[in-house]
Amino acid sequence: MKTLEDLFRHSVKDMYYAEKQILKDLPRMASAAESEQLRAAFERHREETEGQVERLEKIFDLLGMKPTGTTCEAIDGLIEEGREVMEGADDPEVRDVGMIAAAQAVEHYEISRYGTLIEWARRLGMNEAADLLDETLQQEKATDKKLTELAAGSLNRQAA
Amino acid sequence: MKTLEDLFRHSVKDMYYAEKQILKDLPRMASAAESEQLRAAFERHREETEGQVERLEKIFDLLGMKPTGTTCEAIDGLIEEGREVMEGADDPEVRDVGMIAAAQAVEHYEISRYGTLIEWARRLGMNEAADLLDETLQQEKATDKKLTELAAGSLNRQAA
Repeated sequence: MKTLEDLFRHSVKDMYYAEKQILKDLPRMASAAESEQLRAAFERHREETEGQVERLEKIFDLLGMKPTGTTCEAIDGLIEEGREVMEGADDPEVRDVGMIAAAQAVEHYEISRYGTLIEWARRLGMNEAADLLDETLQQEKATDKKLTELAAGSLNRQAA
Repeated sequence: MKTLEDLFRHSVKDMYYAEKQILKDLPRMASAAESEQLRAAFERHREETEGQVERLEKIFDLLGMKPTGTTCEAIDGLIEEGREVMEGADDPEVRDVGMIAAAQAVEHYEISRYGTLIEWARRLGMNEAADLLDETLQQEKATDKKLTELAAGSLNRQAA
Protein backbone atom coordinates (compact mmCIF):
# COMPACT_ATOMS: atom_id res chain seq x y z
CA MET A 1 0.00 0.00 0.00
CA LYS A 2 1.66 3.15 -1.24
CA THR A 3 -1.15 5.67 -1.43
CA LEU A 4 -4.22 6.75 0.48
CA GLU A 5 -6.32 5.22 -2.28
CA ASP A 6 -4.61 1.83 -1.69
CA LEU A 7 -5.44 2.14 2.00
CA PHE A 8 -9.03 3.12 1.18
CA ARG A 9 -9.47 0.16 -1.19
CA HIS A 10 -8.06 -2.22 1.41
CA SER A 11 -10.38 -0.87 4.10
CA VAL A 12 -13.46 -1.11 1.88
CA LYS A 13 -12.66 -4.81 1.36
CA ASP A 14 -12.17 -5.15 5.10
CA MET A 15 -15.60 -3.64 5.85
CA TYR A 16 -17.20 -5.77 3.14
CA TYR A 17 -15.95 -8.87 4.92
CA ALA A 18 -17.01 -7.41 8.28
CA GLU A 19 -20.57 -6.61 7.17
CA LYS A 20 -20.97 -10.10 5.69
CA GLN A 21 -19.86 -11.68 8.97
CA ILE A 22 -22.25 -9.45 10.92
CA LEU A 23 -25.04 -10.46 8.51
CA LYS A 24 -24.40 -14.12 9.37
CA ASP A 25 -24.21 -13.43 13.11
CA LEU A 26 -27.30 -11.28 13.65
CA PRO A 27 -29.91 -14.08 13.18
CA ARG A 28 -28.08 -16.11 15.86
CA MET A 29 -28.22 -13.13 18.22
CA ALA A 30 -31.89 -12.49 17.40
CA SER A 31 -32.86 -16.07 18.21
CA ALA A 32 -30.91 -16.04 21.48
CA ALA A 33 -32.55 -12.79 22.65
CA GLU A 34 -34.99 -13.07 25.56
CA SER A 35 -36.51 -9.63 25.11
CA GLU A 36 -38.90 -9.29 22.17
CA GLN A 37 -37.71 -5.73 21.61
CA LEU A 38 -34.09 -6.84 21.44
CA ARG A 39 -34.93 -9.63 19.03
CA ALA A 40 -36.78 -7.12 16.82
CA ALA A 41 -33.82 -4.71 17.00
CA PHE A 42 -31.37 -7.41 15.87
CA GLU A 43 -33.73 -8.41 13.04
CA ARG A 44 -34.16 -4.82 11.91
CA HIS A 45 -30.43 -4.29 12.00
CA ARG A 46 -29.95 -7.41 9.88
CA GLU A 47 -32.13 -5.81 7.22
CA GLU A 48 -30.17 -2.56 7.47
CA THR A 49 -26.93 -4.50 7.16
CA GLU A 50 -28.13 -5.92 3.83
CA GLY A 51 -28.44 -2.34 2.60
CA GLN A 52 -24.98 -1.54 3.97
CA VAL A 53 -23.51 -4.45 2.00
CA GLU A 54 -25.21 -3.10 -1.14
CA ARG A 55 -23.76 0.37 -0.53
CA LEU A 56 -20.28 -1.11 -0.27
CA GLU A 57 -20.95 -2.91 -3.58
CA LYS A 58 -21.77 0.47 -5.15
CA ILE A 59 -18.45 1.79 -3.84
CA PHE A 60 -16.58 -1.18 -5.35
CA ASP A 61 -18.31 -0.26 -8.60
CA LEU A 62 -17.19 3.40 -8.30
CA LEU A 63 -13.63 2.13 -7.69
CA GLY A 64 -13.84 -0.19 -10.71
CA MET A 65 -13.30 -3.20 -8.47
CA LYS A 66 -15.08 -6.53 -8.15
CA PRO A 67 -16.67 -6.80 -4.65
CA THR A 68 -14.38 -9.00 -2.59
CA GLY A 69 -13.71 -9.13 1.11
CA THR A 70 -10.44 -9.47 2.94
CA THR A 71 -10.33 -11.17 6.33
CA CYS A 72 -10.93 -8.63 9.08
CA GLU A 73 -9.40 -10.04 12.27
CA ALA A 74 -11.05 -7.34 14.34
CA ILE A 75 -14.62 -8.27 13.46
CA ASP A 76 -13.84 -11.98 13.84
CA GLY A 77 -12.61 -11.27 17.37
CA LEU A 78 -15.55 -9.03 18.23
CA ILE A 79 -18.06 -11.63 17.01
CA GLU A 80 -16.23 -14.44 18.80
CA GLU A 81 -16.35 -12.46 22.02
CA GLY A 82 -20.11 -11.94 21.62
CA ARG A 83 -20.58 -15.65 21.04
CA GLU A 84 -18.69 -16.52 24.22
CA VAL A 85 -20.94 -14.24 26.29
CA MET A 86 -24.02 -15.70 24.58
CA GLU A 87 -22.95 -19.25 25.42
CA GLY A 88 -21.53 -18.45 28.86
CA ALA A 89 -24.63 -16.70 30.26
CA ASP A 90 -26.91 -18.97 32.26
CA ASP A 91 -29.61 -16.39 32.88
CA PRO A 92 -31.68 -15.04 29.97
CA GLU A 93 -31.69 -11.42 31.17
CA VAL A 94 -27.93 -11.50 31.85
CA ARG A 95 -27.48 -12.97 28.36
CA ASP A 96 -29.42 -10.05 26.86
CA VAL A 97 -27.32 -7.53 28.78
CA GLY A 98 -24.11 -9.23 27.62
CA MET A 99 -25.29 -9.50 24.00
CA ILE A 100 -26.23 -5.83 23.93
CA ALA A 101 -22.74 -4.92 25.18
CA ALA A 102 -21.14 -7.14 22.53
CA ALA A 103 -23.33 -5.65 19.80
CA GLN A 104 -22.40 -2.14 20.94
CA ALA A 105 -18.70 -3.01 20.71
CA VAL A 106 -19.35 -4.06 17.09
CA GLU A 107 -21.26 -0.83 16.40
CA HIS A 108 -18.41 1.24 17.86
CA TYR A 109 -15.93 -0.60 15.65
CA GLU A 110 -18.04 0.22 12.62
CA ILE A 111 -18.59 3.85 13.69
CA SER A 112 -14.82 4.26 13.94
CA ARG A 113 -14.14 2.58 10.59
CA TYR A 114 -16.86 4.36 8.64
CA GLY A 115 -15.83 7.70 10.14
CA THR A 116 -12.29 7.12 8.89
CA LEU A 117 -13.45 5.90 5.47
CA ILE A 118 -15.63 9.01 4.99
CA GLU A 119 -12.68 11.27 5.78
CA TRP A 120 -10.44 9.37 3.35
CA ALA A 121 -13.10 9.35 0.59
CA ARG A 122 -13.50 13.14 0.87
CA ARG A 123 -9.72 13.60 0.68
CA LEU A 124 -9.70 11.42 -2.45
CA GLY A 125 -12.47 13.56 -4.00
CA MET A 126 -14.83 10.55 -3.92
CA ASN A 127 -17.86 12.45 -2.65
CA GLU A 128 -20.42 9.94 -3.89
CA ALA A 129 -18.66 7.17 -1.97
CA ALA A 130 -18.41 9.43 1.10
CA ASP A 131 -22.17 10.09 1.00
CA LEU A 132 -22.93 6.36 0.75
CA LEU A 133 -20.63 5.65 3.70
CA ASP A 134 -22.26 8.44 5.69
CA GLU A 135 -25.72 6.89 5.22
CA THR A 136 -24.36 3.70 6.78
CA LEU A 137 -22.58 5.61 9.57
CA GLN A 138 -25.85 7.29 10.57
CA GLN A 139 -27.56 3.86 10.76
CA GLU A 140 -24.77 2.48 12.95
CA LYS A 141 -25.03 5.46 15.31
CA ALA A 142 -28.81 5.06 15.54
CA THR A 143 -28.41 1.33 16.25
CA ASP A 144 -25.91 2.06 19.01
CA LYS A 145 -28.32 4.57 20.58
CA LYS A 146 -31.22 2.10 20.35
CA LEU A 147 -29.07 -0.58 22.04
CA THR A 148 -28.28 1.82 24.90
CA GLU A 149 -32.03 2.25 25.47
CA LEU A 150 -32.62 -1.50 25.34
CA ALA A 151 -29.75 -2.10 27.78
CA ALA A 152 -31.52 0.02 30.39
CA GLY A 153 -34.67 -2.10 30.03
CA SER A 154 -32.77 -5.38 30.28
CA LEU A 155 -30.85 -4.15 33.31
CA ASN A 156 -34.12 -3.18 35.01
CA ARG A 157 -35.63 -6.61 34.35
CA GLN A 158 -32.44 -8.33 35.48
CA ALA A 159 -32.47 -6.36 38.75
CA ALA A 160 -36.18 -7.12 39.35
CA MET B 1 -22.51 -16.30 34.44
CA LYS B 2 -25.78 -15.96 36.28
CA THR B 3 -25.77 -12.39 37.53
CA LEU B 4 -24.81 -8.92 36.41
CA GLU B 5 -21.93 -9.08 38.87
CA ASP B 6 -20.61 -12.24 37.16
CA LEU B 7 -20.76 -10.41 33.83
CA PHE B 8 -19.02 -7.39 35.34
CA ARG B 9 -16.25 -9.52 36.83
CA HIS B 10 -15.74 -11.30 33.52
CA SER B 11 -15.55 -8.00 31.62
CA VAL B 12 -13.07 -6.48 34.07
CA LYS B 13 -10.79 -9.48 33.44
CA ASP B 14 -11.33 -9.01 29.72
CA MET B 15 -10.28 -5.35 29.86
CA TYR B 16 -7.30 -6.19 32.05
CA TYR B 17 -6.05 -8.54 29.36
CA ALA B 18 -6.87 -5.92 26.68
CA GLU B 19 -4.96 -3.10 28.41
CA LYS B 20 -1.95 -5.33 28.90
CA GLN B 21 -1.92 -6.22 25.19
CA ILE B 22 -2.24 -2.53 24.29
CA LEU B 23 0.64 -1.75 26.65
CA LYS B 24 2.83 -4.22 24.74
CA ASP B 25 1.72 -2.92 21.34
CA LEU B 26 2.10 0.85 21.82
CA PRO B 27 5.94 0.93 21.83
CA ARG B 28 5.90 -0.90 18.47
CA MET B 29 3.49 1.66 17.07
CA ALA B 30 5.53 4.55 18.49
CA SER B 31 8.72 3.31 16.87
CA ALA B 32 7.00 2.78 13.50
CA ALA B 33 5.51 6.31 13.48
CA GLU B 34 6.95 8.74 10.96
CA SER B 35 5.46 11.86 12.53
CA GLU B 36 7.15 13.02 15.71
CA GLN B 37 3.80 14.16 17.09
CA LEU B 38 2.28 10.75 16.48
CA ARG B 39 5.21 9.01 18.13
CA ALA B 40 4.83 11.29 21.15
CA ALA B 41 1.08 10.62 21.27
CA PHE B 42 1.62 6.85 21.31
CA GLU B 43 4.26 7.20 24.01
CA ARG B 44 2.02 9.41 26.12
CA HIS B 45 -0.83 6.97 25.71
CA ARG B 46 1.44 4.11 26.80
CA GLU B 47 2.04 5.98 30.08
CA GLU B 48 -1.70 6.59 30.48
CA THR B 49 -2.36 2.90 29.83
CA GLU B 50 -0.10 1.99 32.75
CA GLY B 51 -2.39 4.08 34.95
CA GLN B 52 -5.42 2.38 33.44
CA VAL B 53 -3.99 -1.03 34.33
CA GLU B 54 -3.47 0.19 37.89
CA ARG B 55 -7.07 1.40 38.08
CA LEU B 56 -8.29 -2.04 36.99
CA GLU B 57 -6.10 -3.55 39.72
CA LYS B 58 -7.86 -1.32 42.26
CA ILE B 59 -11.19 -2.61 40.96
CA PHE B 60 -10.03 -6.22 41.33
CA ASP B 61 -9.17 -5.29 44.89
CA LEU B 62 -12.64 -3.81 45.47
CA LEU B 63 -14.11 -7.04 44.09
CA GLY B 64 -11.87 -9.12 46.36
CA MET B 65 -10.28 -10.76 43.30
CA LYS B 66 -6.70 -11.38 42.28
CA PRO B 67 -5.89 -9.39 39.11
CA THR B 68 -6.03 -11.86 36.25
CA GLY B 69 -6.84 -11.39 32.60
CA THR B 70 -8.99 -13.54 30.36
CA THR B 71 -8.22 -13.70 26.63
CA CYS B 72 -10.07 -10.96 24.82
CA GLU B 73 -10.44 -12.06 21.19
CA ALA B 74 -11.62 -8.61 20.18
CA ILE B 75 -8.47 -6.78 21.22
CA ASP B 76 -6.29 -9.51 19.73
CA GLY B 77 -8.07 -9.02 16.39
CA LEU B 78 -7.89 -5.21 16.58
CA ILE B 79 -4.17 -5.28 17.34
CA GLU B 80 -3.51 -7.87 14.62
CA GLU B 81 -5.32 -5.67 12.11
CA GLY B 82 -3.19 -2.69 13.10
CA ARG B 83 -0.04 -4.75 12.71
CA GLU B 84 -1.04 -5.81 9.19
CA VAL B 85 -1.52 -2.17 8.14
CA MET B 86 1.80 -1.24 9.78
CA GLU B 87 3.63 -3.96 7.86
CA GLY B 88 1.68 -3.60 4.61
CA ALA B 89 2.22 0.15 4.15
CA ASP B 90 5.15 1.02 1.89
CA ASP B 91 4.93 4.77 2.37
CA PRO B 92 5.65 6.32 5.80
CA GLU B 93 2.83 8.88 5.65
CA VAL B 94 0.35 6.23 4.51
CA ARG B 95 1.58 4.03 7.36
CA ASP B 96 0.88 6.84 9.86
CA VAL B 97 -2.62 7.36 8.44
CA GLY B 98 -3.31 3.61 8.67
CA MET B 99 -1.88 3.31 12.19
CA ILE B 100 -3.99 6.23 13.41
CA ALA B 101 -7.12 4.55 12.00
CA ALA B 102 -6.18 1.26 13.71
CA ALA B 103 -5.50 3.03 17.01
CA GLN B 104 -8.86 4.82 16.79
CA ALA B 105 -10.61 1.48 16.28
CA VAL B 106 -8.95 0.30 19.52
CA GLU B 107 -10.01 3.50 21.32
CA HIS B 108 -13.60 3.06 20.15
CA TYR B 109 -13.59 -0.51 21.41
CA GLU B 110 -12.42 0.71 24.80
CA ILE B 111 -14.89 3.61 24.86
CA SER B 112 -17.70 1.16 24.24
CA ARG B 113 -16.48 -1.32 26.87
CA TYR B 114 -15.75 1.24 29.60
CA GLY B 115 -19.10 2.94 28.94
CA THR B 116 -20.83 -0.39 29.53
CA LEU B 117 -18.75 -1.22 32.61
CA ILE B 118 -19.55 2.15 34.21
CA GLU B 119 -23.27 1.56 33.69
CA TRP B 120 -23.01 -1.93 35.20
CA ALA B 121 -20.90 -0.73 38.15
CA ARG B 122 -23.48 1.97 39.00
CA ARG B 123 -26.28 -0.61 38.84
CA LEU B 124 -24.28 -2.81 41.19
CA GLY B 125 -23.84 0.11 43.59
CA MET B 126 -20.08 0.04 43.00
CA ASN B 127 -19.65 3.79 42.71
CA GLU B 128 -15.94 3.81 43.51
CA ALA B 129 -15.29 1.34 40.69
CA ALA B 130 -17.52 3.39 38.37
CA ASP B 131 -15.52 6.55 39.13
CA LEU B 132 -12.23 4.78 38.43
CA LEU B 133 -13.59 3.45 35.15
CA ASP B 134 -14.85 6.91 34.23
CA GLU B 135 -11.36 8.40 34.67
CA THR B 136 -10.10 5.88 32.14
CA LEU B 137 -13.03 6.51 29.80
CA GLN B 138 -12.26 10.25 29.73
CA GLN B 139 -8.63 9.46 28.80
CA GLU B 140 -9.70 7.17 25.98
CA LYS B 141 -12.05 9.83 24.60
CA ALA B 142 -9.29 12.45 24.75
CA THR B 143 -6.88 10.08 22.97
CA ASP B 144 -9.42 9.44 20.23
CA LYS B 145 -9.88 13.20 19.74
CA LYS B 146 -6.12 13.77 19.64
CA LEU B 147 -5.76 11.01 17.02
CA THR B 148 -8.42 12.67 14.86
CA GLU B 149 -6.36 15.88 14.91
CA LEU B 150 -3.16 14.01 14.07
CA ALA B 151 -4.92 12.18 11.22
CA ALA B 152 -5.67 15.52 9.55
CA GLY B 153 -1.98 16.47 9.71
CA SER B 154 -0.82 13.12 8.33
CA LEU B 155 -3.38 13.30 5.52
CA ASN B 156 -2.16 16.79 4.60
CA ARG B 157 1.46 15.63 4.47
CA GLN B 158 0.52 12.53 2.51
CA ALA B 159 -1.36 14.66 -0.06
CA ALA B 160 1.56 17.11 -0.37
